[in-house]
Amino acid sequence: MIGQSTRDIPLKLGKFDLATSARWLEARMRHPVRRGAMSPREKALADRIKTLKREAGSHSPSAPTLIKLIPELRLRVDACFLSNPYATGLFLEYLQREVIRTGRLRKLLEFYPSQNRVIAGKLSRSIDIPADHLFIGNGAVEIIQAIMHRFTGHKILVNLPTFSPYHEFARADTQVVYNVVKKEDDFRFDPAAYVARVKREKPDTIVLINPNNPDGGYIPHATLVRMLEELRDVPNIILDESFIHFACEGDAYAFRSLGGETDRFPNLMVVKSMSKDFGVAGIRAGYAVMAPARVRELLENGYLWNSSGLAEYFFDLYSRPEFLAEYERKRVHYIRHSRRFFKALSAMPGLYAYPTSANFILVELRNGMVAEDLVCQLLVRRGIYTRTCDDKKGLEPGKFLRVASRTRSENRFVLRAFRDILR
Amino acid sequence: MIGQSTRDIPLKLGKFDLATSARWLEARMRHPVRRGAMSPREKALADRIKTLKREAGSHSPSAPTLIKLIPELRLRVDACFLSNPYATGLFLEYLQREVIRTGRLRKLLEFYPSQNRVIAGKLSRSIDIPADHLFIGNGAVEIIQAIMHRFTGHKILVNLPTFSPYHEFARADTQVVYNVVKKEDDFRFDPAAYVARVKREKPDTIVLINPNNPDGGYIPHATLVRMLEELRDVPNIILDESFIHFACEGDAYAFRSLGGETDRFPNLMVVKSMSKDFGVAGIRAGYAVMAPARVRELLENGYLWNSSGLAEYFFDLYSRPEFLAEYERKRVHYIRHSRRFFKALSAMPGLYAYPTSANFILVELRNGMVAEDLVCQLLVRRGIYTRTCDDKKGLEPGKFLRVASRTRSENRFVLRAFRDILR
Repeated sequence: MIGQSTRDIPLKLGKFDLATSARWLEARMRHPVRRGAMSPREKALADRIKTLKREAGSHSPSAPTLIKLIPELRLRVDACFLSNPYATGLFLEYLQREVIRTGRLRKLLEFYPSQNRVIAGKLSRSIDIPADHLFIGNGAVEIIQAIMHRFTGHKILVNLPTFSPYHEFARADTQVVYNVVKKEDDFRFDPAAYVARVKREKPDTIVLINPNNPDGGYIPHATLVRMLEELRDVPNIILDESFIHFACEGDAYAFRSLGGETDRFPNLMVVKSMSKDFGVAGIRAGYAVMAPARVRELLENGYLWNSSGLAEYFFDLYSRPEFLAEYERKRVHYIRHSRRFFKALSAMPGLYAYPTSANFILVELRNGMVAEDLVCQLLVRRGIYTRTCDDKKGLEPGKFLRVASRTRSENRFVLRAFRDILR
Repeated sequence: MIGQSTRDIPLKLGKFDLATSARWLEARMRHPVRRGAMSPREKALADRIKTLKREAGSHSPSAPTLIKLIPELRLRVDACFLSNPYATGLFLEYLQREVIRTGRLRKLLEFYPSQNRVIAGKLSRSIDIPADHLFIGNGAVEIIQAIMHRFTGHKILVNLPTFSPYHEFARADTQVVYNVVKKEDDFRFDPAAYVARVKREKPDTIVLINPNNPDGGYIPHATLVRMLEELRDVPNIILDESFIHFACEGDAYAFRSLGGETDRFPNLMVVKSMSKDFGVAGIRAGYAVMAPARVRELLENGYLWNSSGLAEYFFDLYSRPEFLAEYERKRVHYIRHSRRFFKALSAMPGLYAYPTSANFILVELRNGMVAEDLVCQLLVRRGIYTRTCDDKKGLEPGKFLRVASRTRSENRFVLRAFRDILR
């Protein structure tokens, strides 16, 4: 049934505008969808998905990988993927207009991009932090690896649940200690208990992700500053702000980064992925703010040409006020309808959704359904890709899934599917 | 004069076909070019170039960086840049046809690319080496850094002159020992003396670049195999084959890689940049062949998403026979006219050109001219960017420059400029 009813509808992943995709989804919502037990064919597909997921270890196979390996799947909504699709569209508009139509693309692909320091100079203009405090990474993940291999010593304290590279990339001689944030407290982070734990445990490196992945929990700016004051003796504090653009304090949509505070707190390293807020995971762009001596130490040991030509172009764009103004509108638009999506999802029967300040929501199944089965049903029957959290340390297996917010019409499609399956 | 006569001619760097650029260069060759002492304006430009070059350390600023920082410069030929421009054109044709026109570009930029192991699987098909022997890098430079930081121990032996990351990226606790290859012997590598030196010096890591950068010297396949037999006790042997596609043994244009020999020699690690032969430095793609245990060790410590979407597309292309067949024609075409270019340059008075098996040639000035001045004259007056080797360890400063082969018409333009200046 899946193969038949969807074969005539082109996969819209590749299109620049989302309108056609939206129309298709709206039409799809009006049609009945098969319910009840899975057919043998659907079961076979589900088994292949489960196997792939297990082989991928602690990271879900990307949607393109999944489609390539199981071509029978018809992917409609990639709600596993944590990025703002409107920002992707904006980047593509600029790229089309300024690079592809003008013939500049050849230059970006043929020649060596600028070195780390040159790109740091561009970034410096847009975030108003001196270039010697900036280290440019081939995605944030390269920076996490660099910090953990070069600055972390005998012991690192990581909250659980967390983004897994923070424990996976630890060197063999680094002990990983976990601070478990409990679901009973809505995964709320307790600053006082945390500071006490750090003082007792004496790690040389601590990691805070704000908002946290995978639960979306947020530590307010003022709380973080107070904690940093109390933790001046910790040699390395990694603050991962990869989702900070989606977190707002107060009534307006402003977000508050601690990137400007590395002079006041020289032990602080702020890590920032550009994949999520700007929707450009495929170009691999990230940066970190840290004390100049740390940046120098990293650059003296490599990272010479670690940005691609497209990543450099992205950082060029990021330094331009007109791009930033347009991006700001996309960001607010996305946050607005993401909030509505999370609110509607939270109201569904049979699940509990944890409070989130990010662009995804952590959902716990409380109707006896197994998370992996729900993920497979959503994918096989509706083409919706969500993420089980069975591989996430600190989360009970079989119960949790993480759902990302996508475009408004995609979110509506996801809500409808949840409603159908859960009722 | 430069500013006036060239302002009306568009910079052709960005175009996909090279025909317009070729026509411009042909026309330019028929016009007289200013000779004699530099004007104050030209001198001022030359001084800015020299300052930039010094600030760049042991790597020349890229042509795009140079143009950005000195916009008065009119770059015509980037003969500093070591890559096959015909291969760039081929890649761009495919990219236009398959990715840009079909709307697949969004997918490449928006989503996470596949992980290292998945891309290794694609590469495996084209080079016929098992995927578990392959480590995919964000350019070869990332791999060099990874090997030197993870596998190299107390002592590394590096030939001089060399590609500088092989000594610059050494860890603080690694001693770098040099084996100087002498210009008096045409930078010829002496295998017997080298093996004796290794046995005496007992480094844990040795580095061979074949063909070597910056002199283009080549060690025949059979010689390398004999050396590897004799050096089985050395824990790590890095063989950098980044220029191997330009080196031919025998009458035909075949080249011989040692990538398939890591089972026979488990201490061997073959490093390969894709930037040179495929003309795609801006996408950052490279790989290494090594024992599976080494690949596993690297992947367990990071390198999770170190390829971009475009790099993954490149490796996709690289596994397709029709692309490889077209590439092969571009490769042979480029080698053919590069050889003619090198021959003509070698016959110029006032310089000595060293024998080369790469796509560049090392030139020693023997007419009393200072290399830096020649480089500045070529750049300011003709828009030709070549590379001084003043920063290269093992080469006498002021005497050497490295000239890359570009398109046929660009090479003719370069020859004419050399002829004009040297006579």
